[in-house]
Amino acid sequence: MPTHRFVPTTYHNVIGSLSPALRIADGDTVITETIDAAGYDKDEVRQAPGPNPMNGPIFVEGAEPGDSLKVEILGMVPTRDTGFTRSVVAGNVVDPSDIRTLPAGDKAIWQIDREALTTRLSEPVAGLEAFVLPLSPMIGCFGVAPSLGQAISTATSGEFGGNMDYRLLSPGTTIWFPVSAPGALFFLGDCHAVQGDGEIVGTGIETTFEVTVRLSVEKKKTIVWPRGETVDDIFTIGNARPLDQALQHATSEMLRWLDADYGLDKTAASHLLGQVVRYDVGNVFDPAYTMACRVSKSWLTRR
Amino acid sequence: MPTHRFVPTTYHNVIGSLSPALRIADGDTVITETIDAAGYDKDEVRQAPGPNPMNGPIFVEGAEPGDSLKVEILGMVPTRDTGFTRSVVAGNVVDPSDIRTLPAGDKAIWQIDREALTTRLSEPVAGLEAFVLPLSPMIGCFGVAPSLGQAISTATSGEFGGNMDYRLLSPGTTIWFPVSAPGALFFLGDCHAVQGDGEIVGTGIETTFEVTVRLSVEKKKTIVWPRGETVDDIFTIGNARPLDQALQHATSEMLRWLDADYGLDKTAASHLLGQVVRYDVGNVFDPAYTMACRVSKSWLTRR
Amino acid sequence: MPTHRFVPTTYHNVIGSLSPALRIADGDTVITETIDAAGYDKDEVRQAPGPNPMNGPIFVEGAEPGDSLKVEILGMVPTRDTGFTRSVVAGNVVDPSDIRTLPAGDKAIWQIDREALTTRLSEPVAGLEAFVLPLSPMIGCFGVAPSLGQAISTATSGEFGGNMDYRLLSPGTTIWFPVSAPGALFFLGDCHAVQGDGEIVGTGIETTFEVTVRLSVEKKKTIVWPRGETVDDIFTIGNARPLDQALQHATSEMLRWLDADYGLDKTAASHLLGQVVRYDVGNVFDPAYTMACRVSKSWLTRR
Amino acid sequence: MPTHRFVPTTYHNVIGSLSPALRIADGDTVITETIDAAGYDKDEVRQAPGPNPMNGPIFVEGAEPGDSLKVEILGMVPTRDTGFTRSVVAGNVVDPSDIRTLPAGDKAIWQIDREALTTRLSEPVAGLEAFVLPLSPMIGCFGVAPSLGQAISTATSGEFGGNMDYRLLSPGTTIWFPVSAPGALFFLGDCHAVQGDGEIVGTGIETTFEVTVRLSVEKKKTIVWPRGETVDDIFTIGNARPLDQALQHATSEMLRWLDADYGLDKTAASHLLGQVVRYDVGNVFDPAYTMACRVSKSWLTRR
Repeated sequence: MPTHRFVPTTYHNVIGSLSPALRIADGDTVITETIDAAGYDKDEVRQAPGPNPMNGPIFVEGAEPGDSLKVEILGMVPTRDTGFTRSVVAGNVVDPSDIRTLPAGDKAIWQIDREALTTRLSEPVAGLEAFVLPLSPMIGCFGVAPSLGQAISTATSGEFGGNMDYRLLSPGTTIWFPVSAPGALFFLGDCHAVQGDGEIVGTGIETTFEVTVRLSVEKKKTIVWPRGETVDDIFTIGNARPLDQALQHATSEMLRWLDADYGLDKTAASHLLGQVVRYDVGNVFDPAYTMACRVSKSWLTRR
Repeated sequence: MPTHRFVPTTYHNVIGSLSPALRIADGDTVITETIDAAGYDKDEVRQAPGPNPMNGPIFVEGAEPGDSLKVEILGMVPTRDTGFTRSVVAGNVVDPSDIRTLPAGDKAIWQIDREALTTRLSEPVAGLEAFVLPLSPMIGCFGVAPSLGQAISTATSGEFGGNMDYRLLSPGTTIWFPVSAPGALFFLGDCHAVQGDGEIVGTGIETTFEVTVRLSVEKKKTIVWPRGETVDDIFTIGNARPLDQALQHATSEMLRWLDADYGLDKTAASHLLGQVVRYDVGNVFDPAYTMACRVSKSWLTRR
Repeated sequence: MPTHRFVPTTYHNVIGSLSPALRIADGDTVITETIDAAGYDKDEVRQAPGPNPMNGPIFVEGAEPGDSLKVEILGMVPTRDTGFTRSVVAGNVVDPSDIRTLPAGDKAIWQIDREALTTRLSEPVAGLEAFVLPLSPMIGCFGVAPSLGQAISTATSGEFGGNMDYRLLSPGTTIWFPVSAPGALFFLGDCHAVQGDGEIVGTGIETTFEVTVRLSVEKKKTIVWPRGETVDDIFTIGNARPLDQALQHATSEMLRWLDADYGLDKTAASHLLGQVVRYDVGNVFDPAYTMACRVSKSWLTRR
Repeated sequence: MPTHRFVPTTYHNVIGSLSPALRIADGDTVITETIDAAGYDKDEVRQAPGPNPMNGPIFVEGAEPGDSLKVEILGMVPTRDTGFTRSVVAGNVVDPSDIRTLPAGDKAIWQIDREALTTRLSEPVAGLEAFVLPLSPMIGCFGVAPSLGQAISTATSGEFGGNMDYRLLSPGTTIWFPVSAPGALFFLGDCHAVQGDGEIVGTGIETTFEVTVRLSVEKKKTIVWPRGETVDDIFTIGNARPLDQALQHATSEMLRWLDADYGLDKTAASHLLGQVVRYDVGNVFDPAYTMACRVSKSWLTRR
């Protein structure tokens, strides 16, 4: 399959039905360099304003509403020696009565060692002198044009994907998005070197990457919410507030998937999920929160 | 330290300031047999009505409001060859529009192989013919008398513990509860052979166990929400609805803990949690939902 | 029917299955003086600690689980010339990002003119020089012993009633509580001279009253959530978090009521509620929030 | 000021930065006929698909980001003899456990008497034989282009307005929207003959209207959420899930307003709101819920 090296000339703060920046065939691979969540590139030059400027959209030939776009995350190579985070947990992840006790917060810089594949704070913080983290690259925000011709801020998320900030959206993972517009119109950006559950300081370690993805159309595979697969697991994603509702979306999507592809009706799926399901928390900082419903493939036999 | 074999003569459907059934010294060990969530004992004889009948309360000498009760879960030995579950996911974990599509649901029986330490459904279910689960015992509901002389149903949870249904509350784990009444008044029951995140069918595999716990008083260790420690991790627990609020309680408690015992002020703790925190979903079936905030001990140095 | 003048010798911070302080016949009237939410009586002498000390419990002969206790609020006479409020809105009623901008807050004193039936702040506040409010007395917290022998803090609420802080719980209103314990065990306290929706400063104007209620048993009238009636309206109450869930409880209870007593099946009730329902916000400060579902009696014909 | 009669040639299912259909001067009046929520016009001819097709956008000269667009609802004249509703309350307004008990639901037709200004169900429903409602026209969905070039489905709402379904958005009311795009780009549609709080059957009585609005720019009046004024009250609107968060947005906006225009700092505003605020429930059916925070003008003196 052909490989496209995609160099954006403009970036977008929405995911929506914009003019395609690139057209590719079903199954093609795209290599593209992302800028960081604040719009700075690998040379620390600001290319776009925030939030989360996106590369794209990429029009995938043959994708029509009712299909799914399969996105294989083939590789993420960091392209800068620094990343940034906010330095204090967000107000909405602590008790309201504790918000006053939080310091004001600032931007912190992290050094990225691209040989050792580790990162550490640039300035020492008391108690964290030895805090060196292995890189764990992930895509914070990506997805396809939503329905009705909508264009949605990259600060939030929905059925179409968006700013989900889920740790497992990393190299080796495949994700499917529901196609709502011709060509799917795929967008990508906001990559993180590391991030804990919830993106609770309002950022991961925000930096720039060269990202390689393969984009394929699965005709007539109609899904409601994003679905994904890692080496070990399958998962579904719900995006909403409160988290309870995100969990409902993800669980409903998993029940549909287990029925369609794994031969498990709702009773069988209930027995399975009841005893083995895992829920993972994605973003709990943005207007929509993210919850993933995950099942080990060791329990599943694809039909 | 002495070991007490505690045989209840009555069971309780609330956790509260009831007359002690046993008095022990600080640091004593208790071995007791629990009945299942519906009140049936290891011989399938009903000893009590539901929900979640508790053994207890156990009065621990020296425990006063403002202290913590440390509960080490030393062992859980299954005492019956069967467990039960409900057979359909609860309405509140799927989209409201999907509730009508769920089958009516029933009680399902599981065979427990106490030699192999595995369990399987008694009656075959299409698609799950090979579904054999390793036992993973855990305590669904335990805690101490809440403040103000309250007595709270074992169907729910709060600062005092209760029906949290969190998978890591298992042998090898230590949990601390905030003491609100003299003697702490510890209750215990509702043990599960296996359970997925969320207890989303409304049950784990409900069965009977012989449970061994050591109960110790930590004087003047004032906590707000339960805290815990496994071989690998420390965690805090919040119980509330919606899940967002449970997450807030758990995160606030973790910030207090990291400050008090690990020398991390709120900025240092934010840097740490922002990049390494894990959130685990406990019960999402009962009136109060449960979320745990978990951190690997590999990142921490106890002061 | 006989009238009892009930003078408590002790007060309670929970609503639960405690020993009766008074036994009355079905249909008797009780006159009792309440102390304020902080436990001060009409002479500013502290009689009990907070939160919301209750008069009671009153055992009503003949009340059994499955019945309803009908409470007619016949009168509320203020008995003190002062009330108090907190002076700043609670953190949980503003955006988390605004909490830091709130002043610290304090206790404010209000003068109550018991002849004019008005109240005003004791100390002038800039911009509120002319702020004189008509008294609008209401009961903040009342209810009956909950199920299972529970005893629940008067800081919160549930099916049994409790700290609902709903403005229409005022003289002329009748409310029904679901009986869960023999004798119902009625508690009463925490009365307000005035209160806006939500009790958003964490208090109404907290003061002392002489309250007159008539308590009657409606046999076999099984309800799930409190129901009420004013001169103009009927209403149902749900207590939970988030408000969405309180609204669900209240609406479900209203559908049951319209079916049982007004001959409206779920379709007819939907047509009615869809076009005429009113939702009122009770407490949004406490652990459980309160929402009322209200319908004008002008649309209804009792069967 | 000039009056424009605006006849749309196309309708929109999003509110966003689309090409203007009409350009007017600051302060001009617009008269336009709206079609119903399903896209049918006054002659029952379908002009557009749902959801909630909008007339617009109208570009108002001089409006820039940071300004407010003032919308005076001068008149709403019904233009059709029929309206429609759904016939069963939405699943998300009842307890999840009650959803199965709801009938399947259908579309119901209402007769509108445009002389008597009343409406009634076309087909009799048992128990509602005498159910004749006075018309109470309101605009379900309107607003201005949101920030960042977004285009948002008319099925939901946000800072920009949208599908708020709040009863007080009716003739005689003025509402201000925060301008985020040059010209404001005003959209309008989805009018209701009557609607209860919450739009709990998923519709009001959906029909067609001739609507008259005056659109004015208030320069440098920067607001975050919609504000409104009736003859009696001022109000602010929050749109979010859960309702708790909508209430927070509305309350925060009211605090800003009381400070800016009524000389009440946060303490004074707290004293006022604490005792006199009213909360009204708008839409509780759509992805974002709506809550209004309302204060009687009788308590206020404009600075």
